[in-house]
Amino acid sequence: MTIAQDPTSRYAVIGTRPIRHDGYDKVTGRAEYGADVSMPGMVWGDILRSPHAHARILKVDLSKAAAMPGVLAVVSGLDLPRNGRREIDVRGGVTHLPDVSANILATHKAMYRGHAVAAVAAVDRETARVALALIEVEYEPLPAVLSIDDAIAADAPILLDDLIGDHLGEDVWGTNIARHFRLEFGDPDAAFATSSLVVEREVEVGMAHQGYIEPHVATALWGEDGRITIWSSTQGMFGVRDHTAAFLGIDESRVRVMPVEIGGGFGGKGAVYLPPIAALLSRDAGRPVRIVMDMRNVLEATGPTGAAKVRVKVGVTDDGLINAAQADLKYEAGAYPGSWVGVGARSVFSCYNVANTRIDGYDIVVNKPRAAAYRAPCVPQAVFATESAVDEICEAKGWDKIEFRLANASREGTRRSDGPRFPRIGHEEVLRATRDSDHWRTPLERIGPDGRLRGRGIASAYCGNAGGKSSVVLSLNTDGTVALLEGSADLSGSRAIVAMQVAEALGLGVEDVRPVIPDTGSIGYTATTGGSRVANATGLAAYQAAESLIAKLKERAAIGWGIAPEEVAFKGGQFSSRTDPELSVGLKGLAARLDGTGGPVMASGSVDLPDGGGGVFGTHIADVEIDPETGKTDVVRYTVIQDAGTAIQPQAVEGQMQGGAAQGIGWALNEEYVLNEDGAMANASFLDYRMPTATDLPFIETVIVEVPNPAHPFGVRGVGEIPIGPPLAAIGNAIHDALGIRLTTTPMKPGRILEALAQRTVE
Amino acid sequence: MTIAQDPTSRYAVIGTRPIRHDGYDKVTGRAEYGADVSMPGMVWGDILRSPHAHARILKVDLSKAAAMPGVLAVVSGLDLPRNGRREIDVRGGVTHLPDVSANILATHKAMYRGHAVAAVAAVDRETARVALALIEVEYEPLPAVLSIDDAIAADAPILLDDLIGDHLGEDVWGTNIARHFRLEFGDPDAAFATSSLVVEREVEVGMAHQGYIEPHVATALWGEDGRITIWSSTQGMFGVRDHTAAFLGIDESRVRVMPVEIGGGFGGKGAVYLPPIAALLSRDAGRPVRIVMDMRNVLEATGPTGAAKVRVKVGVTDDGLINAAQADLKYEAGAYPGSWVGVGARSVFSCYNVANTRIDGYDIVVNKPRAAAYRAPCVPQAVFATESAVDEICEAKGWDKIEFRLANASREGTRRSDGPRFPRIGHEEVLRATRDSDHWRTPLERIGPDGRLRGRGIASAYCGNAGGKSSVVLSLNTDGTVALLEGSADLSGSRAIVAMQVAEALGLGVEDVRPVIPDTGSIGYTATTGGSRVANATGLAAYQAAESLIAKLKERAAIGWGIAPEEVAFKGGQFSSRTDPELSVGLKGLAARLDGTGGPVMASGSVDLPDGGGGVFGTHIADVEIDPETGKTDVVRYTVIQDAGTAIQPQAVEGQMQGGAAQGIGWALNEEYVLNEDGAMANASFLDYRMPTATDLPFIETVIVEVPNPAHPFGVRGVGEIPIGPPLAAIGNAIHDALGIRLTTTPMKPGRILEALAQRTVE
Repeated sequence: MTIAQDPTSRYAVIGTRPIRHDGYDKVTGRAEYGADVSMPGMVWGDILRSPHAHARILKVDLSKAAAMPGVLAVVSGLDLPRNGRREIDVRGGVTHLPDVSANILATHKAMYRGHAVAAVAAVDRETARVALALIEVEYEPLPAVLSIDDAIAADAPILLDDLIGDHLGEDVWGTNIARHFRLEFGDPDAAFATSSLVVEREVEVGMAHQGYIEPHVATALWGEDGRITIWSSTQGMFGVRDHTAAFLGIDESRVRVMPVEIGGGFGGKGAVYLPPIAALLSRDAGRPVRIVMDMRNVLEATGPTGAAKVRVKVGVTDDGLINAAQADLKYEAGAYPGSWVGVGARSVFSCYNVANTRIDGYDIVVNKPRAAAYRAPCVPQAVFATESAVDEICEAKGWDKIEFRLANASREGTRRSDGPRFPRIGHEEVLRATRDSDHWRTPLERIGPDGRLRGRGIASAYCGNAGGKSSVVLSLNTDGTVALLEGSADLSGSRAIVAMQVAEALGLGVEDVRPVIPDTGSIGYTATTGGSRVANATGLAAYQAAESLIAKLKERAAIGWGIAPEEVAFKGGQFSSRTDPELSVGLKGLAARLDGTGGPVMASGSVDLPDGGGGVFGTHIADVEIDPETGKTDVVRYTVIQDAGTAIQPQAVEGQMQGGAAQGIGWALNEEYVLNEDGAMANASFLDYRMPTATDLPFIETVIVEVPNPAHPFGVRGVGEIPIGPPLAAIGNAIHDALGIRLTTTPMKPGRILEALAQRTVE
Repeated sequence: MTIAQDPTSRYAVIGTRPIRHDGYDKVTGRAEYGADVSMPGMVWGDILRSPHAHARILKVDLSKAAAMPGVLAVVSGLDLPRNGRREIDVRGGVTHLPDVSANILATHKAMYRGHAVAAVAAVDRETARVALALIEVEYEPLPAVLSIDDAIAADAPILLDDLIGDHLGEDVWGTNIARHFRLEFGDPDAAFATSSLVVEREVEVGMAHQGYIEPHVATALWGEDGRITIWSSTQGMFGVRDHTAAFLGIDESRVRVMPVEIGGGFGGKGAVYLPPIAALLSRDAGRPVRIVMDMRNVLEATGPTGAAKVRVKVGVTDDGLINAAQADLKYEAGAYPGSWVGVGARSVFSCYNVANTRIDGYDIVVNKPRAAAYRAPCVPQAVFATESAVDEICEAKGWDKIEFRLANASREGTRRSDGPRFPRIGHEEVLRATRDSDHWRTPLERIGPDGRLRGRGIASAYCGNAGGKSSVVLSLNTDGTVALLEGSADLSGSRAIVAMQVAEALGLGVEDVRPVIPDTGSIGYTATTGGSRVANATGLAAYQAAESLIAKLKERAAIGWGIAPEEVAFKGGQFSSRTDPELSVGLKGLAARLDGTGGPVMASGSVDLPDGGGGVFGTHIADVEIDPETGKTDVVRYTVIQDAGTAIQPQAVEGQMQGGAAQGIGWALNEEYVLNEDGAMANASFLDYRMPTATDLPFIETVIVEVPNPAHPFGVRGVGEIPIGPPLAAIGNAIHDALGIRLTTTPMKPGRILEALAQRTVE
């Protein structure tokens, strides 16, 4: 269902649901993924990983492994020239990639269980595995710090000797808190004093993995000319290029990253793990080297989202307005600094118009894998706290949960949590659509089969959209089709989404635009696919390229007609003279007649956007049914209401909404890292790391709301991240609605529910 | 040795000899050629070929082959939808490709031995081979017409029922002469009447094959979405795309041709043979299908140059000027019309300023494989006749062979054989350089070891350069390197040649420009690499793209400096303010500072040139040594003097000069098609088709003359074809100089020399 604020019927292509250009290849198995890459002479790489969550590495002896027949190369962290030297800083924006080469291969310290310590290349996979066992590493185990509380305790072991913490602008030595920042607006303390009700709520959200089906894989070929070619499953070919070059201490232009399809990323494949190692091994082996992680490696040694503790305090006045809010956001960064706590701060109160706020954010180092982005990174944790508190306020005051949110909703001009004022945004429209939805208007039967208890919860979330650089080239064929080169990895149908914008701009059918994703040596810089940026930023670059193509074609038409270019108009795919009605030709007709007017016509477009517009809001409604005997919670109905700006391809938007909600529901109810006290993961397989499957969930209903982004010609907003924002809170609120108990720790698994029920009985 | 008319020292990159960008990959075996392409599920295609040079095909029964286990598809000519329908016409310019789908797969008639009749795809190569034997073809053998004389005889069998000949503009039915055209200027008959000497000379030049080492290969994948992907060794990806689409009756944009390296082409890989068959087989097999020719197929069934008979008549006045010339050019087209006789006519007298000329050209169908281009197609045959006659005139009159040529040499304003007036050209400069060369100034010892006889010959030739369409995209990286996308297949180092022009224009080092050849879906239309067009046309497109890039960068610099774009100057890689000397930044520095000025910078360039400028001239000096006992001729010294316009990469130019000369020498002395009377080739292997090897030839000396092409910013002329022009004549003249006998039939092999010597003895 789509609720368009701005009727899309004015578009010919936008809003339709064509088959994706890459669809056939993907369903027939023809699409080439990272692990499909094969070439003559290719050998296998494998990685030795730390069995300790925290240990000093006293010695790494590679000699026995190197001497083993069939072994072609053996490397350790000392082979990375950047290790022990000044780290590069390429963080910021959406290219938030691991900028710590020690995370690629450890040198003096293993910082988490699974941390890569050494690697081999061998003629086959088994030889490589055996060779790993011949590498002798002498460890001095150190106490592992596995939680936020332990990391910030006064007597905590300091994990990174060279970490200089930034605490409210002060340099601090000897800390595990890499960063503590504060955002303060108005006078929250004074405002709280005038509140008629203040609710405080702390939530604890556990680690969760993105759960992509395809493990990380990289193949590297270090050529005789010193140039490196890499094939790797990634959200950002340029990120792989830049990080590999930086970690190896060579020029970016010596690295060429080739496009392969990606089998799921969700933020986790913006990070770089294998390519620099595969490159080093290839250099020494003189052969192409492929490394494929197994699922244990993926879960233990790539970046899940870190655990978080978020405390909020929300004050309301008697007339139902939030007058003050305070948040304390503590996020685990994992082994090296760099959680997305800033994004959490950007989102925590942004659904609402609150004049007086104080937000403290903490980026905390622990002995766990370095956290990576996971969809709207750090947003679900913050939203869980805020929306639990809002729910509590409404319950305490007896206020309608949608009307309260509507009365307080952010709108154009409202200050975002982190300061900037919003442009035109859609939270109110989303809330009204929620109120009008069939789901919300259908009363919940509170008792299900076999005495199971039902409850309904809602939650809103805000997620900013990223901007950044994108590059597009268009090339017109004589048959009127258009080749579209774009640098954005296609995670979720972006080939089609960008092609549709080109088709709309040129008055062509979507099948007339043929998207191609070339390698990093063949297209301008394009930032990593993430931050919900591609439909907007790459779409805008494509739109600009289309405008440039039209301008060039006007000149060509003018040559053919013997008139001035400015006398040529373009509308709906048709070029015509502004003065002579006889002179008119369609784009396809013109394409066929370009001979003699100056050669083939190409055009390029590029953008470097400061941000992705105002961002997006979503509100979810969750109905749960809980067996009080077992504590098992089933989601029986679930609806996602979300602003899409303009839904270029509604099916793709709905897919994002459903996928994000499913991931959030899994995180809310089941998914967790079960770590033993040594930091080892007890459930490091997809059998034991329990993500919801299709049989666990109802069909997730969707309502697309369209409040166009004023900063994009078609009004596009990013839609991919926001749907993971509300589920933790919506489920938590639904559980409270069903049982009257408020769970504040994820996952809200049967044991925790039974425990809470027992606790209540005791009370 | 380079004789620059225009000192190249003003260039930083042009004129240097860098390592080719593709060099390492090629010498280490990493470069991917057509036969290296492999993919899951790929199966083998093979082709059944006609054992008759001329036969009616009464019936093709595919059923037994189709029923054989392991056979996945069987097709015949009837599967090509274009067969029996109006043929498309895509001829003209350098995209002179076989536009006859019956040449891909025969239908009612086999026109030459080796003509493809049916094809199979099977699980392996052996199964495919066995399946071919199960295809039952009923032939009615017809008399084969294997020579020009037989084809034009009054009682000749008519080979193509539906051929309508164009004889001086008249439609003629029932002929094997597809075209007869005449070019007449001045009054040759009247002029001959005033000549003091008229020499007539007829030469017969046999077929010769380009002799590329890599056989033709194509792999096709007909996708589930009806889109076809092709990997094929070719000089023109767009030609493969367009012809495959045309022969299959589908839109061009459904076909995507992927780039692979080419193992030699020399004109012969501008033609299309396998891709449409592989595509049909893939469609029916539902699998990718690869077809690789063997060397017999290559020699018998692809396009060598056809045989030719060229008769010239040249008249001179007493003061040593050519006052009239007449030519009769008969070229075999092979099985279907389309020899390059027009190019022969364009070259035949173009070395000289002749006011009165008549040229008759004939395109003649015979039962041989359809002729393809071979380097300067149809030029060597014409030059052989003209330069033999010129030699004869000089001998008869006692005139110096260089001074006579200099006195008559074409210069700016002279009419070319086929009409147009020359712009600035370099024949005089080449002749002067010949006269000044060490080779010419070193007297020949006329008796060699063991009584072998020596002679020296020279010959000049003219070759036009093609124009056509080329497309280039440049993309600036932040490290100041530039990605160069170009659509031209790299036959002879054109990646480097084009990259050097970009580097020169941008003030970068050649290693800073990284050429990439993408697929046909990723770059604007670019004509086939041939006609010596790439260095000029693609170079010009690249130059335009560089100019466009500079213009965009001026805008960016202006933003950074807060001045108007027109205030920014660019010179020698440096951007600077025209007014404020403080404001200056190198291109690399600017590249690193583009953030915040509007995103990545790309630019495109495209050209559609009517021709390649004035064309080029070359003069060759050949010293031969002949054993009068055996008739064996050795080339003992050989020098190529040639105008290169501006030699972008002198080593590459020299390589072309040496390679072209070597091919011409082979054709002159050894290479031939030994056909039996049924049209079967008796020497269809590289062991028996005797091309010269390094041990057969002396080091070929080179003198590059530089007379810049006024139509190109760097003065580039095409250099690849012309060096095959003079050798037949130079060798023939040298043999005459040694023995006093004039051979007029190629190859001038030992038997022919002994025969001529015996003949002279008899006389």
